[in-house]
Amino acid sequence: MIFSTLTINNNEPIYIQIQRHIEESVARGDLKKNSKLPSTREASKILNISRNSVISAYEELEIKGIIATKRGVGTFVLIERQPSYESYHIDFSSMINSYGQTLRTKDIIKGELPFKKGMISFKSIAPEPSLFNLDDFKRSLLDAWTYEEANLLNYGYAKGYAPLIDYFMEYMKEKSVDTTNKDLLITNGFTEAFDIILSALTKSGDYILCEKPTHNTALKIMEAYGINIVQVDMDKDGLNPEALEEALKKYRPKFGYLIPSYNNPTGIVTKTQRRKEIYDLFRAYSVPIIEDGFNEELLYSSSPTLPIASLCGTGNGVIYIGSLSKILFPGLRIGWILGDKDLIDILESVKRSRTIHSSFLDQSAFYYYLKSGAFNRYVKTVRKYYRDKYNLVMKMVDKYLPYEYVTGEGGLHIFIKLKYNLNARELLNLCFNDGVIFMEGSIFYADNAPSDTFRIGFGRVSDDDIETGIKIIGKNIKKLLKEKR
Amino acid sequence: MIFSTLTINNNEPIYIQIQRHIEESVARGDLKKNSKLPSTREASKILNISRNSVISAYEELEIKGIIATKRGVGTFVLIERQPSYESYHIDFSSMINSYGQTLRTKDIIKGELPFKKGMISFKSIAPEPSLFNLDDFKRSLLDAWTYEEANLLNYGYAKGYAPLIDYFMEYMKEKSVDTTNKDLLITNGFTEAFDIILSALTKSGDYILCEKPTHNTALKIMEAYGINIVQVDMDKDGLNPEALEEALKKYRPKFGYLIPSYNNPTGIVTKTQRRKEIYDLFRAYSVPIIEDGFNEELLYSSSPTLPIASLCGTGNGVIYIGSLSKILFPGLRIGWILGDKDLIDILESVKRSRTIHSSFLDQSAFYYYLKSGAFNRYVKTVRKYYRDKYNLVMKMVDKYLPYEYVTGEGGLHIFIKLKYNLNARELLNLCFNDGVIFMEGSIFYADNAPSDTFRIGFGRVSDDDIETGIKIIGKNIKKLLKEKR
Repeated sequence: MIFSTLTINNNEPIYIQIQRHIEESVARGDLKKNSKLPSTREASKILNISRNSVISAYEELEIKGIIATKRGVGTFVLIERQPSYESYHIDFSSMINSYGQTLRTKDIIKGELPFKKGMISFKSIAPEPSLFNLDDFKRSLLDAWTYEEANLLNYGYAKGYAPLIDYFMEYMKEKSVDTTNKDLLITNGFTEAFDIILSALTKSGDYILCEKPTHNTALKIMEAYGINIVQVDMDKDGLNPEALEEALKKYRPKFGYLIPSYNNPTGIVTKTQRRKEIYDLFRAYSVPIIEDGFNEELLYSSSPTLPIASLCGTGNGVIYIGSLSKILFPGLRIGWILGDKDLIDILESVKRSRTIHSSFLDQSAFYYYLKSGAFNRYVKTVRKYYRDKYNLVMKMVDKYLPYEYVTGEGGLHIFIKLKYNLNARELLNLCFNDGVIFMEGSIFYADNAPSDTFRIGFGRVSDDDIETGIKIIGKNIKKLLKEKR
Repeated sequence: MIFSTLTINNNEPIYIQIQRHIEESVARGDLKKNSKLPSTREASKILNISRNSVISAYEELEIKGIIATKRGVGTFVLIERQPSYESYHIDFSSMINSYGQTLRTKDIIKGELPFKKGMISFKSIAPEPSLFNLDDFKRSLLDAWTYEEANLLNYGYAKGYAPLIDYFMEYMKEKSVDTTNKDLLITNGFTEAFDIILSALTKSGDYILCEKPTHNTALKIMEAYGINIVQVDMDKDGLNPEALEEALKKYRPKFGYLIPSYNNPTGIVTKTQRRKEIYDLFRAYSVPIIEDGFNEELLYSSSPTLPIASLCGTGNGVIYIGSLSKILFPGLRIGWILGDKDLIDILESVKRSRTIHSSFLDQSAFYYYLKSGAFNRYVKTVRKYYRDKYNLVMKMVDKYLPYEYVTGEGGLHIFIKLKYNLNARELLNLCFNDGVIFMEGSIFYADNAPSDTFRIGFGRVSDDDIETGIKIIGKNIKKLLKEKR
């Protein structure tokens, strides 16, 4: 009997479940052409549901041409099961190009040691979700809906939601960036911003300078595009000027990619004086800078450090990528590119051809959230919260970890260099067995060579787990040191 | 006086306005280091606002290290204006690669005749926003928020929102698609889906077969990647089998890209028998098909036409791109790719490297909307609405337009071929002066040659405007015909 295999659940309208059941039965060939269906009255009894649900389902199926009711005779299936066709098989693996292959290989989420419940994870540098001010966000979401309604469901603009563009423009002005002849494009976070810039301005074989170590996602994107990555050594104050000049001279790179505020992974904050030196060198060699404003908002230092983009006045030498979502709501993929007006015009066309536009629901809700002042209140709270966590982490590291040096001036992570070139991968394997994981350093270097460094992200780790976790890491370092001797 | 240029508005918390004003004054150099600020009491009087707002603003500025209060003495500016640095200028236009250049040139939004208020526009094939069931959507949005809350603001998965993936999987099964060894990736609509597939599987110089004419966005993306586009002639039933076989034999293409349900722009619906012939040919030459399910949901025909993907059984030869948002909420950029499991694994990594993931707020709200049955109700309403509009358009075209032939079996657009090779561009220019615009045909052909075809999109045009607009087009066709003779 047609309904004997159907169990009604409460998660979906009943008529839809009936409708789907019949369609699938026809598609499988269980219900043949001209089969008679139970009457709506019978069906409602068999399934113990209201007759209206059956009537609705049958109506839908009639509109779709799957069944027909002959008055006084009954309801019949109109169509035949699709005969099964010969299938064919393509070997897609041999078709994947180097771009796709690189991105699959470098997809660290697919390669890493699996997180298991109960583990202490220092891997993430994402913010702690319990700090999210959800009520403020919900209010902003409803504000967005109230003001925009159908506008949010209709095609938007590739460039972004106009009030949010204006907001970020003002935000950049507050950071002393001269926006003359510049424009702003909203993107799906830093990742899309960086990807779009490279896709439109580089070709395979180009050179790009960046910090050593640097953001692994940026490395991955550059590698996928066939970029020659030149990583320049950092000292404790940021990119080393001598090394930078040498590299600029030698490679005449297409771009420099820099994370001056909280370099990822080292957490090094490049101060104003060094920023100027770096800026001057890029200017001298006429190489544009892509500045990643990563976590600029978390800076604790007493004198606010302005972005490198603020040094360029009306010039267009610096392209700034911003993203508040990194410390706020990482799930809202919202970032922006501020740069030369004509360049943004091109990048807007690229964006349109790739995703048409970013979510207007996200953008509008985010705009109302920022406008309400909730973001400012939030930053105030989290700055204090993460500063306390940072201080605890540093204390524990000093107490339990033998290290060569530690970098990181706050933010949500620190970076540790091990003594005697201990292999961080081996350390990770040991710690994994003890239920502790972190990000080992090799992924932040273009050559992926075994590294004696690792990153500790602490934004989401409880104070107790910080102590326990770092103690375990320390124990395993000592074990490796003993073996080494 | 520092506050003389500040006007308080009601759109933003007052303390933020004060704070920004002071920061900008410092940045501009209007407020020098060691300048004394008015006391909070004075400032509140000058600005006629509550003293608390001033206190909050000063507190924020103290945290940022911009000002400091010495008890009993006053509040002073701590920092110096950023000295203006030498700017530098990069000629980005010379750096744009052919990918960026092509996308800019082919960005039709930037090249087309500008819409002016009061015009009758047949350009859009987007749905009519007044049909959106906004209350249903708002409810779904709130459902999503209630069930997911902070999850929506945290990093999601590149592959998509799990319940929505499951939903679309079921949806494909209902269309008789065998999902064995297949998987599904959520994308930012059709555009990102197509873009990701090409980016990972093709290289410059590859051949792709498609219908002639075909979707201009697909053409644009293919051109930008340096694909050789082979457009195969259609007859009134879809892709012509003889022409298809010839092209398959000659070019051994990497893919076929097909829009079997409502080809854009012709509106031709490929029926089941022709779908099978086309499928057999691609199978015989072992060429995979990218099937664009565009507007499948609007099909009026009495017997439901199953996607080509349903013919392939457990084989992986067909990659299906779906998107409900085209007829529903085009602003919610949600689509999907259903295809070979291992291929989807690669495409997921590509997606992650480009946008991390699509908006989870959008995906979750959309899921609750679909699940509630609202979508089914909506489709029922709009099918009737658009069918009526379609019938009116056809009537008016027969009444007013001299044409060679018209194609389109419903959906949201029809396609017209002019007599005597009249130039549709010239026709458009005449109609533009009379306040009527449409999509001239050349953009749907890879060679962009002048065309005697044009597309009429009617989803958003009122019945009166349909009559008036088509009358005007008819008048101008007759004018051109007269000149021609």
